[in-house]
Amino acid sequence: MSVTTPSGFTAQGAAAGFKSTGARDLALVVNNGPLDVAAAVFTANRAKAAPVLFSERVVADGRARAVVLNSGGANCFTGEQGSSVTERTAQLTAEAIGAESRDVVVCSTGLIGEQLPVERFEAAVPALAAELADTDAAGIAAAEAIMTTDTVPKTAVYRGAGWSVGGMAKGAGMLAPGLATMLVVLTTDAVADAAELDAALRASTRVTFDRLDSDGCMSTNDTVVLLASGASDQTPGSAALQEAVTAVCADLARQLLHDAEGASHDIEIEVVGAVSEDEAVEVGRSCARSNLLMTAIFGNDPNWGRVLAAIGTTSASFDPYDVDVTFNGVRLCTKGGPDRPREECDLTPRRTHILIDLHAGERAATILTNDLTHDYVHENSAYSS
Amino acid sequence: MSVTTPSGFTAQGAAAGFKSTGARDLALVVNNGPLDVAAAVFTANRAKAAPVLFSERVVADGRARAVVLNSGGANCFTGEQGSSVTERTAQLTAEAIGAESRDVVVCSTGLIGEQLPVERFEAAVPALAAELADTDAAGIAAAEAIMTTDTVPKTAVYRGAGWSVGGMAKGAGMLAPGLATMLVVLTTDAVADAAELDAALRASTRVTFDRLDSDGCMSTNDTVVLLASGASDQTPGSAALQEAVTAVCADLARQLLHDAEGASHDIEIEVVGAVSEDEAVEVGRSCARSNLLMTAIFGNDPNWGRVLAAIGTTSASFDPYDVDVTFNGVRLCTKGGPDRPREECDLTPRRTHILIDLHAGERAATILTNDLTHDYVHENSAYSS
Repeated sequence: MSVTTPSGFTAQGAAAGFKSTGARDLALVVNNGPLDVAAAVFTANRAKAAPVLFSERVVADGRARAVVLNSGGANCFTGEQGSSVTERTAQLTAEAIGAESRDVVVCSTGLIGEQLPVERFEAAVPALAAELADTDAAGIAAAEAIMTTDTVPKTAVYRGAGWSVGGMAKGAGMLAPGLATMLVVLTTDAVADAAELDAALRASTRVTFDRLDSDGCMSTNDTVVLLASGASDQTPGSAALQEAVTAVCADLARQLLHDAEGASHDIEIEVVGAVSEDEAVEVGRSCARSNLLMTAIFGNDPNWGRVLAAIGTTSASFDPYDVDVTFNGVRLCTKGGPDRPREECDLTPRRTHILIDLHAGERAATILTNDLTHDYVHENSAYSS
Repeated sequence: MSVTTPSGFTAQGAAAGFKSTGARDLALVVNNGPLDVAAAVFTANRAKAAPVLFSERVVADGRARAVVLNSGGANCFTGEQGSSVTERTAQLTAEAIGAESRDVVVCSTGLIGEQLPVERFEAAVPALAAELADTDAAGIAAAEAIMTTDTVPKTAVYRGAGWSVGGMAKGAGMLAPGLATMLVVLTTDAVADAAELDAALRASTRVTFDRLDSDGCMSTNDTVVLLASGASDQTPGSAALQEAVTAVCADLARQLLHDAEGASHDIEIEVVGAVSEDEAVEVGRSCARSNLLMTAIFGNDPNWGRVLAAIGTTSASFDPYDVDVTFNGVRLCTKGGPDRPREECDLTPRRTHILIDLHAGERAATILTNDLTHDYVHENSAYSS
């Protein structure tokens, strides 16, 4: 039920000493072929961590044999020393599995601006590689090893006819993509070329992870990588592959949302009646990023005025006095004015739905976000991350 | 020490019943001439409240006789009924002071999406006008009447040679400009024409209120209005007038910052070495809007990695590996990597200074903001506003 579900993949997780708690903090996912096709998307933040800069070069040729990931340190803003730690990690992994270091993707997550002790990789990587397995337990161990403030490991699978897609993810701070770093590894045993993989991955992330906006903070380390082994000998084709990858990404995105730091409401902001999908996304994102709206929802207050105030900061086509806003099925605002009394709306359930009709066009998009809570402030002020 | 300090102005504040607490909630500032020159800037939010839409028309001709302001209700998203309440308020004020309603600026602040009871204006405005005075006490009463979640009234003055500028402000949620609504009334007895006033006001707000970004939320009601009576018979000229207005606006902006909802740190983000002033502002604003950075400062954690991650989301010219970051005088990051240990930096004082050197050019700008605290979440989740 994880990255090891598709044929041709082994994985494992272990404790290498990066986390002071002694929990698992080093994960390895290996593609045993016959194919070694790969695609990846990385954070759009211009301040990228050392492993992101390294891994961008690794996947540039559309090939990768393995992904090695550590929690307990982001290896970001760590200068030349940080780059050499990443290179050494790839080299150690390559040696342990019989590959080239230019075919090893490296991911790190945790506190920014601290050096990772290279000797911990030296001690742990060979032992980890020796324990690689294709079992469910091994896949779960890998998913556990990438957790930081996550409270549960996150895995998902999609089963096709004789082939499958598996995945694991971590991320709890968040996600625009987010600073506490989203890392996702996806595997498939389908037969596909690099261009197909890349197209499927980009189409999937555009409508899943890219529409998850928990706290508006964009990470320095975010990485989503998709590996194809071809071990199923099935060639589902671009459309089926994209559908499968999107299903797994959507499942993982909802798990990330549900486990977001300190959240008490999982919020779906559905924007309809937009001139374009991009404008629908812009409107949804402006609401997701409004601290005033997100604290109101924490207080179970369906404050639709804050929705309209957020929309008013966008450049989307709309007339403020032709907008309808519905919270959990109760239309509180019609044509930019009060409709039903807000007392009729119950925001106590964790799942919250906000429907915004711009009455400007025919396009729609949904953004997923969380409320802004005391626990968010606590988690992000009491601990460095 | 307020709007009544410059000659030619009277003011007053009273309780009209908009606030359930019985506190003052209606203010009036009247320009008794001989001049009635006026300039104003309004929220850039495209969803503007009824009084903003009305007042934009009032000041379009560069003239105004009075400003009437209420707290206890923003009169925003209130449809035609809301517009007629604003018009009626201007009419009542005009009748009470012997002016035309097209020369009365109207401002409202409080909860969005609720109707204001027009009968309270009808009962209170004539009585308020009868109590107008040019005393300090009257000016303070007016400043108190516009408070919402503000904990103190905010006033400031600048004294020139034989002339002066006075001001009052409210705003505590905030300010990009902000949803809990910033309202500012400035008065001067200098002789100036409408073009001079407008130029002085825009130049001043650009470097004061526009650089205050407490929670990134933009108000539907923000208004800054400047009235000139000419009663001093002094003509200071554009440069001196602009300097005086900027001084009063900067003073009021710092008072707003200091009283921001739930804040425990007043943060000055100074960006130097930028290619342009606009890029310096963009970089400072990206930091001010990072919830992760603002919660870290609440926790007294000088998390410079979150500074670089915020800068990385901008389009400003910079090399992440050539940026220096200094917290309260301790340089923690040099060339995008760790410098001094973060333990050397003390963030317990309320005043916090973050210096960011982009090493890309010669321009600079400073953004003022607050940390993101439990009290902010509490104030904005427990009460509608």
